[in-house]
This record gives sequence, C-alpha cells and structure tokens, in this order.
Amino acid sequence: MTVPARDTVEIGLNRFARRGYDLDEVSIVPSRRTRDVDDVSTAWQIDAFRFDIPLVTSPSDAVVSPATAIAVGRAGGLGVLNAEGLWTRYDDPLPVYRQLREAGAEAPPPVSLLQQVYCEPVKPDLITARIKEMRDAGVTTAVRVSPQHTEQLAPAVLAAGVDLLVIQGTIVSAEHVTTQGAALNLKSFIADLDVPVIVGGAANYQTALHLMRTGAAGVVVGVGADSFSTGDAVMGIRVPLASAIADAAAARRDYLDETGGRYVHVIANGRIETSGAIARALACGADAVQVGEPLRAAKEAPGGGVWWDSVAAHPRLPRGGTSAPIPSAGSLEQVLLGPAETSDGRTNLFGALRRTMAKTGYRDLKEFQRVDLVIGGRPD
Amino acid sequence: MTVPARDTVEIGLNRFARRGYDLDEVSIVPSRRTRDVDDVSTAWQIDAFRFDIPLVTSPSDAVVSPATAIAVGRAGGLGVLNAEGLWTRYDDPLPVYRQLREAGAEAPPPVSLLQQVYCEPVKPDLITARIKEMRDAGVTTAVRVSPQHTEQLAPAVLAAGVDLLVIQGTIVSAEHVTTQGAALNLKSFIADLDVPVIVGGAANYQTALHLMRTGAAGVVVGVGADSFSTGDAVMGIRVPLASAIADAAAARRDYLDETGGRYVHVIANGRIETSGAIARALACGADAVQVGEPLRAAKEAPGGGVWWDSVAAHPRLPRGGTSAPIPSAGSLEQVLLGPAETSDGRTNLFGALRRTMAKTGYRDLKEFQRVDLVIGGRPD
Amino acid sequence: MTVPARDTVEIGLNRFARRGYDLDEVSIVPSRRTRDVDDVSTAWQIDAFRFDIPLVTSPSDAVVSPATAIAVGRAGGLGVLNAEGLWTRYDDPLPVYRQLREAGAEAPPPVSLLQQVYCEPVKPDLITARIKEMRDAGVTTAVRVSPQHTEQLAPAVLAAGVDLLVIQGTIVSAEHVTTQGAALNLKSFIADLDVPVIVGGAANYQTALHLMRTGAAGVVVGVGADSFSTGDAVMGIRVPLASAIADAAAARRDYLDETGGRYVHVIANGRIETSGAIARALACGADAVQVGEPLRAAKEAPGGGVWWDSVAAHPRLPRGGTSAPIPSAGSLEQVLLGPAETSDGRTNLFGALRRTMAKTGYRDLKEFQRVDLVIGGRPD
Amino acid sequence: MTVPARDTVEIGLNRFARRGYDLDEVSIVPSRRTRDVDDVSTAWQIDAFRFDIPLVTSPSDAVVSPATAIAVGRAGGLGVLNAEGLWTRYDDPLPVYRQLREAGAEAPPPVSLLQQVYCEPVKPDLITARIKEMRDAGVTTAVRVSPQHTEQLAPAVLAAGVDLLVIQGTIVSAEHVTTQGAALNLKSFIADLDVPVIVGGAANYQTALHLMRTGAAGVVVGVGADSFSTGDAVMGIRVPLASAIADAAAARRDYLDETGGRYVHVIANGRIETSGAIARALACGADAVQVGEPLRAAKEAPGGGVWWDSVAAHPRLPRGGTSAPIPSAGSLEQVLLGPAETSDGRTNLFGALRRTMAKTGYRDLKEFQRVDLVIGGRPD
Repeated sequence: MTVPARDTVEIGLNRFARRGYDLDEVSIVPSRRTRDVDDVSTAWQIDAFRFDIPLVTSPSDAVVSPATAIAVGRAGGLGVLNAEGLWTRYDDPLPVYRQLREAGAEAPPPVSLLQQVYCEPVKPDLITARIKEMRDAGVTTAVRVSPQHTEQLAPAVLAAGVDLLVIQGTIVSAEHVTTQGAALNLKSFIADLDVPVIVGGAANYQTALHLMRTGAAGVVVGVGADSFSTGDAVMGIRVPLASAIADAAAARRDYLDETGGRYVHVIANGRIETSGAIARALACGADAVQVGEPLRAAKEAPGGGVWWDSVAAHPRLPRGGTSAPIPSAGSLEQVLLGPAETSDGRTNLFGALRRTMAKTGYRDLKEFQRVDLVIGGRPD
Repeated sequence: MTVPARDTVEIGLNRFARRGYDLDEVSIVPSRRTRDVDDVSTAWQIDAFRFDIPLVTSPSDAVVSPATAIAVGRAGGLGVLNAEGLWTRYDDPLPVYRQLREAGAEAPPPVSLLQQVYCEPVKPDLITARIKEMRDAGVTTAVRVSPQHTEQLAPAVLAAGVDLLVIQGTIVSAEHVTTQGAALNLKSFIADLDVPVIVGGAANYQTALHLMRTGAAGVVVGVGADSFSTGDAVMGIRVPLASAIADAAAARRDYLDETGGRYVHVIANGRIETSGAIARALACGADAVQVGEPLRAAKEAPGGGVWWDSVAAHPRLPRGGTSAPIPSAGSLEQVLLGPAETSDGRTNLFGALRRTMAKTGYRDLKEFQRVDLVIGGRPD
Repeated sequence: MTVPARDTVEIGLNRFARRGYDLDEVSIVPSRRTRDVDDVSTAWQIDAFRFDIPLVTSPSDAVVSPATAIAVGRAGGLGVLNAEGLWTRYDDPLPVYRQLREAGAEAPPPVSLLQQVYCEPVKPDLITARIKEMRDAGVTTAVRVSPQHTEQLAPAVLAAGVDLLVIQGTIVSAEHVTTQGAALNLKSFIADLDVPVIVGGAANYQTALHLMRTGAAGVVVGVGADSFSTGDAVMGIRVPLASAIADAAAARRDYLDETGGRYVHVIANGRIETSGAIARALACGADAVQVGEPLRAAKEAPGGGVWWDSVAAHPRLPRGGTSAPIPSAGSLEQVLLGPAETSDGRTNLFGALRRTMAKTGYRDLKEFQRVDLVIGGRPD
Repeated sequence: MTVPARDTVEIGLNRFARRGYDLDEVSIVPSRRTRDVDDVSTAWQIDAFRFDIPLVTSPSDAVVSPATAIAVGRAGGLGVLNAEGLWTRYDDPLPVYRQLREAGAEAPPPVSLLQQVYCEPVKPDLITARIKEMRDAGVTTAVRVSPQHTEQLAPAVLAAGVDLLVIQGTIVSAEHVTTQGAALNLKSFIADLDVPVIVGGAANYQTALHLMRTGAAGVVVGVGADSFSTGDAVMGIRVPLASAIADAAAARRDYLDETGGRYVHVIANGRIETSGAIARALACGADAVQVGEPLRAAKEAPGGGVWWDSVAAHPRLPRGGTSAPIPSAGSLEQVLLGPAETSDGRTNLFGALRRTMAKTGYRDLKEFQRVDLVIGGRPD
C-alpha cells in the first residue's frame, strides 16, 4: 500500500509531523455555475437503506431517545440510539434526565454526576424493548455498541431486529492487541452478521482502510463528538477533521479499486455543529455526517437542552464536558429542515446544505464532493 | 483558458485547496517615494459616469434611502438603492425603520422581525417613484435588483430612467441551471439594455471572467457584505477577499486582452469597514469598493445607526445578523471626506485613502493597484 | 558536528530564523493498532533508579516539600526539592507559606513579597536535614541546585546522601564564560561525582549535546516552568518546546552513537500542565517530563494551591508571576493516578498517558516516542 | 542594486506579497554559551556620541520634557524632545498636561482634545529655550522636527546648539514629490549641516538605503510608535518590524560596502514596549531602539501616566489613540535600569537586555545582532 507524501513539517531534527486541517479552516468556493435549490438532492443510501438527508445522529443520550430516533427517521435521517446509554440502563430514564437537567439549571451539570448515573448496568432486555419501539414506528433502526461490549451485547441487538449496527468508540482499530483473552476480531464478526455495520472512529488513511477491509458498510472518521470534548487536553490527541475525511475518502477510493467495486461510506464525526460544518465535511469527501450537539436545541431532545457526550461519563478519565441547557429553537424537523429564524447556522441544517449545493452548482452529494475548496479567510 | 497554478495545499490525500488571503492579512508597504496629498486623485469612471471617490454603496436599507443616495452622489460616490428593499415595499417606510430602531434599542433587533417586515411585496410603482426622486436631484442613479427578479422588475427600473443597473445576489454566475422554466440569460439580457450593468458577486477568476463576458460594465467581487454576515457558519462558504480581488483583476486583464480593449471594473465587496480596508482592496486590484456598514454612523443614515444586510432577512435561511445602533459620528460627508475626530478608521474614509496614496507615492488609483504588499504583522 | 537543515524562514534580507513548534501545536494521531490499557507500561529508569511514571517534579516550593517529595516517590515518580528554596532558608517555612497564601487570598500574591521572603540566606545544615527526612522515608531523593551555587552547596548535598543531583537554571550551558574568577566546569565537576546528575535547561541541539558530553545522566530541555512565566516579555527568549525536545532527542541519538552506547535521558520542562501535554512531550521524544504547576491542586501541596516558580523571586529581574490559590482536586495520588472527576486534563495525569498509549497501540515509552504526529487542528 | 528574493506569496493570480514578521513572532534562542551579566556591555555610539544603553526616546510629549530628556541622558540614553510639541507651542505647558490628565482620569482622553491643544502654533524662541535647558544640564541634546517643517524650524534648532537632529515623520522618503513648490531635498540639506542627523521612518530595504545615501548618521525603521497606533485601520499600512529591521540592516551592510566604510545606525521604532521587544529588535539587527510608551510609567513622565503619540493629534486624520493613566512603576532610572518589582517586562528595560545577552553568551550589541532566532512558540 503506497501512501503518497503530503505536507510534512520537520518539528525538530529528523522528527516529522503532518500538517492537518480542521473543518473550520477549509471553506467552499462558489464556482462558475449556480443551480435552482429545488433541483438539488441531498439523498444518501447505505446498503439497502435510503435517506433524504445525510444525517447519522451521534448516539448521545442528550439528544437520542427512541422517540427522537423515530422523529429523525421521519425527517429523512438515521437516528442512532446508544445501546449502552440511559435508555438501556434504566427502565424509566426520565427521572435521570430530570436530575441532570436540574443539576444543570444554572451551570453545566458536574461530570461526577454523569459518572454516577452511568454506573447503573446495561440490561439486554431493555435493548430489545427500545429497538422494538423504533421498529414498530417503521423507521430504519440503528443502535451503537462499544467495541468492548460488542460480543456481549450483539446477540440481544441482533435478535431485536436492528437494521444497522454501529460499533463505535473514540478510537477503534481493526487490530486490537490484548493479553487478556481474545480481542474482538472485527473481520470475522462482521462476516458472520446479516446486518450492515458502521464502525469507527478512525483518524487516518490506514485505519480507515483497515476498517473498510473488515467488511463494514460505513466507517466513522474522527474522534471527537462535540466542542465540549477535551481529548486534546486529556490525551494529547487531535484529529484535524478535514484532513482525516480527505484521507478516508482516499482509502474509500483505493478500497473500491482493490475490491473491484465495494463502496464503503465515510461518515464524518467531530464538532459538526453548524450547517456550514456539514457542508464542509461533505465537500471534503464525506458521504454523511454524524451530528449530535445541535439537536439538543430541538424541543423533542430528551436532555431538554443540556448536552453531554458519553466520553464525559467515563468512570476514571472523563474526556468531555457538559453544558447548561440552551433554549429550544423549535421542533426537530425545524432544526433539520427549517425554516430558520436565526442566522447562526444551527437551524435548518440540511436546508442550508441544499442551498450551498445550489449556490455552487451541484446536483447531488457525490458531485458536491468535488467542489473547490479554499484554506484561509476569517471565520464569522 | 489557462489559469496559472498558485499556493495549493493538500488537505488530505489527493484533495487540494487553494490558500486564500483576507484583506486584513494583506497590508500596504510604503515605498521609496512620497507625494503631496493634494497631488493625489481618487477619481474613478465607469462607462460615462465619473466619480471623485471610488465608492459604490451596498444596497442596504440600513444606510441607503433615496435621500442618502443623493447625498452620496453629491459627495462624489455612487449610491445604490435596493429596488427590493423597504423603499419599494412600503409607501412610507419610516414607521418600519422606527420599529426596527426601537426593537434594537438595547440589543440587536431580532432576525425574525426583519423576516416579517420584508414579507411585504415589492411595488413596481414605488421603484419608479424612488428613482425619479434621485434623478431629480441630479446625481447618477443606480438601483439593485436580484437575479431572480431581474426580468420581472427591470421594465419598471429602466422606464424610470436609471443610469446604472446593479444585478446583485450573494453569489451570481453567468450560468444558472434550472429545470423550472428558463433562467435569466445574463448575456442576452445585458446585450439588449441601453444602460450599463454592474453584476455580482463573484468569488473567483472563472466566475469573474464569465460575468465580464456577459457584457457587464462592472463585476462585484466578494459574497459577504459586512462583519455581521454568517455565510461561513450557515453555508460553509468563505471568500478570502484579497485573493478574490487579485483573481478578478487577473480576469480583467485577460478579458481586456481577449477583447482588444474592453476594461470591466472590479468592485470589491465584503467587510470593507475601515479606510484601511478600502486602501487594501484597491491595492489588491479593485477599481472601486462597495461600502455599507460604516455609513450607518452618518447622521443621515435611515436606519439611525442600526445595521442589517438584506441576506439577514431571508425567509427560510437568514445569513446575517443585525446590530444595535451606534452613535452618529457626524454627517455623511464627514464620514466620507473628514475631518475625523476619532482614530478608528471609520471616518474620513476617502481622505484617508488619499493620504495612504500620498504616503506611498502614488498619483491615481490605477497606479496605486501596483503598490507593494506584505502579508503578516499584527493588526491594530 | 553536522546539523541537518530544517524549516528556516528569511525574516528579512539574509537574516534567517528557524520555525519552531510548541507542544500545543503538535498532536498525537491514533494509528492502525489499539491495545489494552492494562498491557501498557509507563515505567522509566535513569541510572540505577526506576520509576513507574516518567515524572520529575519542578523544584518549586509551591508544590515540593520534603513530605510531598516522599508522596511523589511513593506514587512512582521523582520529587525534586529545591536546595535553594524555602525549606533550606527557613527552619520552619510554614509561617512563610501562610503569609504567601494569605497575601494571595483574593489576588495573586505580589512578586515583591516573593522577592522579600527569598532574601533569607540558604543554610547548608537545613539542606542536610531535609535530605535526611526524604531518605528516611525510603524514596529516591533528589535536590536541585543552581549552577551559580553548585560548588558552594554541593558538599552539603552530597554528604547528606542524595541519590540524584539536579543542577538547573533557566538556561545552562556547558561553556559559561566569566572574567570574575573561575566558572563551574560542569564536565570535571560531574566526573568527580559518585551520584548521577541531571542538568539543564537547554534549548537546542548543540547545548543539549554539549551538556550530554559533560557526563550528565539526564538533560532538562526547555526554559520555562509554567504558564505564568514571562521570559518572553522580559527577555525576548522563547523556546518552542516540541522542537526543542525533538532536537534534544536527536542529540541523544548522536551522542549514543559517538559514545557507543551512552543513553542520556531527555527531560522536558515548560508549561507541561495537562495530561495531554505530558503525552505530547513524550511523543516528541522526551524520556520524562518535569511537572510543577498542576501539582498545586493536590491537597498535600505546601503552597495550598498558590503557585509561583523560583524565577518569579529574582531580586532584580523577576521573570514569572504568581497565582491565587485554586481549590484542591484531591490527593496527590489522585492528581497523578486518578480517578478523575473532572475532564480538564489536570487530574489522573499519568493514567491518561497510559490510555493515550493504549489507544495508539504502544506498549512502552520508548516505542511511544515514534507515534505519528500532526500539526494543526483546533485546541479544545 | 540587487535585492535577493525572499518569502513571497501569490495572494491571487500574478499578484504577490512578501511575508513579513513582527517582533513578537521572532524570539531569541539561547546558544551553547552563557556569560556573566557583569561582563556584558550594552554601549552604543553614534557619531561622536556614546551611550551606555541603546535607547533613543520617542519624541512624544507624554514622556519627554526637557527635564526627562536630561534624566534619560543621565541614565545613559538619548532623550529626544519634539520641537513641534507642547513644550515649543506653550510657554508653560503644565496646564495643558493637567487638562489632558484630568480628561483622562477615567477613560482615555478624547482625540479631539488632543487635536485642539495642538492647534497652538510652534514658537521658534521656545525651541531655543528648551534646547538651552537641556544643554546646560550637560547631556547630549536632540530634538525632532517633521520633514514638512524642517526648513522652517532648523535655523532655530541649529542656532540653539543641538547635538543631534532627528527628522522624523511616520513615513519619510528620500524622494518627496510635490507640485506645490520645492520639496525638502534631504541630501543637500544634510550635507550642509554640521550636526549629525537621524532620519525616518523607513519601512523597507530601498527606502532605508536611500535615506542612508542622504548622509544621515542614523535611520529610523518602522512607522508605528506604540500599540495605540491605528495606522493599520486608518491607512491600511502595516510594517512587520522584525522584517523591516533585518531589511534595513541589509541596507546598512550594502551601504557600508558601497561607501567603503560608512556605518549608518539603524534605530528600530514600533511597539517596542517591553524589555523582550528591545532584545528582539536588537537581535534582528537594530543598533538602538526608539522607546516611548513604557516610559510613561516613570514618575518623572510629564504626562503623569497618560499616553499619546503625535500622530494621534493630526487635525484631519488622527492615527492613534490615547490611554488613561497607569500608576507609576518607580523612577525613570528604575524603569530603565531596575531593579524590577514586577515581572511584566516593563521595568528594568535595559538590565533585562544585559541579562538576555549574558544568557545567550554575547559580550556586546554588535555581536548580539547575530544571535539565533526562532519563529513560533506561544507568547506569554
């Protein structure tokens, strides 16, 4: 496997680093053509499942309950419920949500409270029940499991008839080394499954390619779920997402070539919190985006406007913060499809994407991945 | 058409972006010569119309009424009234202005209020009346129409005897694709007109060149009108203006060559809010600048110091903010021509330009486009 | 000695500067492998002394008393007591600590107060007593002396039976030139000693190499001890630490080659205040890190949460500030080894390192020095 | 004259800009040698005049009165009185100072008040009296005149027996073009003088070289006098000072060569407000620094802690702000030579320089101009 060289920097004698770019450094340049907004399609398809908008939700309890997963499905996207979250730990999670919301009334709820409520064990029968609720609503169903608990929880998940399985941790590799018994072999695990799998996060070309070779239908690229993440301060890990997406898109192209036609979808994940960031991620080469934090503005969000990501609940090394609630900006449908009554890029997320595509002359997402990009310029 | 390569960056494997520069990154370097300020000319001419200062106003209702367009003309610039703004929607827009000013007394007026007042339809007979008022004052008259409404509104505009027609949207291309009936063909439309047309905005060499080929007398370069714009957050689009101006100046030169002598004027538009930014835009190659926001400090500004741009009023996807009023800094003439009693670069906008040209030894604007530039250094 | 060229910039005609990178510009990229956290070792050994965590404390009175040096030793690191600090100037320093804490109750204690309390002379017999106290506890003992006072204080230090001697100033060279009598000859001084010496700070390849040639067991790289340092404003000196570490690692490699196998340890020093920074420093090539400021959050910290570094106490040219106290984040052991109840990267400092190593697939520190690096991306 | 190329950027097609560096981007790197602070000399000599410290004051009324010019001279530097400032406009300027101080008690005094007090005409006999006062004290005397008024005021200045004449404007060229009568011919004017002349500001290699060819003994490099300047916002002009100094040092070298030995001193001017900036300016190649704003902290400063530069008083286009008073940091001698009781780099300005030179192993200023430089790293 040949990886062509690109921007490298010699940070000190004989020690090199690649130069990476974050989404907010890379912008879209209008080209010589424009198009009617009504002629533009934002549709996306993975395996047999077709979506009107390229949205995969973050599996965050703050924004995804079975009910909101259904609402996301009805709006044209894919809601992903966390199979290791509050809905599968608690028979009735509403009091827990209330506790977090009340703790966050004036300041962000303390991380230690998150740690505490996530001590409750996961119950497989609750997984079954939650998936059933979503299935019964007729939307495409997806749940997320962590790589560590995949083998343990997968039977319940699969038995319940999920459509898509999301195996997601902050960082997932196709080669996990352990001396404590056998590690999950993603390749053989996925080969044995009947449902398509989305797996990640990956941070560079090689990891993305290796995950594609496991047989996954989609690969999540990026390690951070939101702007409250602190993986940079805690772990020294930073993944400039524009570069990671472009690298993964190169892996997708190379894997397509090596398999003679298997197209693995690239799903971008990390601080995609405005419609501008959504457009940028797709322009860099993503097929879909994983969005979480902005959905908390929807009046249906189970967290009532409070935000946290699951890494913030880690028992020994939390790697993200929480935030006090924000006021609702309307229904989930309005957040996703407009109309917007504010101009901060946080409502009408996918209507804005459609308009960006129209203003730059592109008809569909696959074409839009070739739009001209520019580095530089002042952010708003 | 050959476009020479320039600074490109490989953001990820095989995905490239150009490096662009914003106006505030590019500064003017004094050279080995200085000149008396009284020996400097800032005059500018487009078609048969000559102006003492290279000012084209933004067609923003916050700063341009028929009366201020007349005052701008008398001060030596070109005022552009929005033919789709408050003055053509309302017989008497003063109560609407008052409503916005009162709503903005303590905080910026809400975008939703803007959306509401702009729901009122445009009346062609008001267009006629407003143009007549400006013509009667003896100044060069110009109004702006959007590309979408050009065919519908142009008859009224032309019948009223406008001198210059400005066809302006955030992003305008010479090739608009639609499946919903025929699109405006700029080339044949302009060919049929008797009045010169200014068209834009364009963001790169190709779009600028294509717009020049429509027969336009001037091309607006840039997509953002002010520092309250949120096109970056909402649409992921950012146009580093210094680079866009230089690219458009290259298109101007190539078009001059391909036509054997047709000079199309480049008018820079985007966060030109200080005299320093005006000087930078011209130094990068612009023939004139489109200025809006700083004019709200003039005591004649119809918005009374409140600011908004028309994109902030979009019914489904507003892409700009509003601002609370600022105190008046003197008359419109003082804002444009001084003297200044403050040192923030927001008054005596064109007196400062004249002084910059003198301090760097240039006699006129065409020469000044060749001044030495530097990237870097700390802003004030 | 050949130093390969690297990133240089011509700041003006024929005047060049190297481009250096700070730790927070350089991040760690997960690679294609992951590993169990329990399979990772953070152990480190210098001379005959082995440590579970690669921690050498800053010799700051704000965080290191004989008691906390012992606690650090028990947690697996190396505590370094300042042989020219409060514990060797005062028989009972507790009232001085109290005075500083009270002066800092609302605002940072004034630098002039620091200058005053450090006027008290150092007493050799107190050095003896403090070292004895640490030895008696059974931990590896280390004290710091300044190069200026090394010859005067070393006899007392050595007689007391210290395990490691740290000769440290802001900037230390192997070639100190003086016309005022003989300068300390580090090479002959170290050759005569029975205990291993750590010496520094050094800022580039050559100084590091020269210090290695003195026979030192370890070299401190970097000049600033904390983010309250003002060496930049006061002296115009700035040492981008990622580059300095990589340069020193190159010197280590070259010295290993020229001696046929002597490995001198590189200890990074300068604003290493989060677990992320610790991981970055080691990833750039350091063998261990010198940490001070974050330890003030330990409930055992003698300064009670107030922070100052010894350069802040300089009688004529203080080069650092002080800070008001912060609340305790738990015991010293919790700060170093967790669990963390916050997510700001300031507790569980070395547990986080272990997890970073696991997530990027490395087994030990020496391997981890080869992890992939990236420049760019947005900090938390 | 051949100017070697250096860092250029193509900001747009065929439009280039040089990349310039500001002082705070360029830092000093300690080298392999250190030196005793008492073995270091900061002495500097221009023409027959020798100074212990390389300080030329800004000719700002806020900090230079005849009395403070004398105090600067006694501390080893060169005080420059503005021959067109308050001391030559008013027989007794103290009430004017009081008025400014009172107007600035709570907020910065308004620029319009400055404009007003500087309307009073300059009186040649006051120039004579002020120079006499300084001469009588036995220090080297220097006054500043603007290029516009040089011919008119020089007779009085020279008759009064000034030692050094400073002809200084924001931007001064050796080739001023005017259609309004004859311009000052610097070359013939300086040739006819008996006293050495310092002239400037210049911003690049060519202007500096041309000014050297006028016969000047020193050239001021840089256009901005302080961090309250707004030449960037008002005029679009920015001079990255590190690059301008290095360019002027190249001109100095080339002029030395072309004349077979005439050494023209380079005096850096622009936001040199900390001891770190002083060290940086000299390290980039300056022979001396022009310092103004930090001197207002001296208890002798006539402005009582208020600050303004003369460009802030321009009648039509002020290009700088004013500031409210700061508390005194001690005597002028303490500000210049220490000891410091704070660590912000604003006292003991030249003691700090001496220490930087010692820590990097340099004996005198001429050697120190070769010290290693680094770009990058985080400022304090």
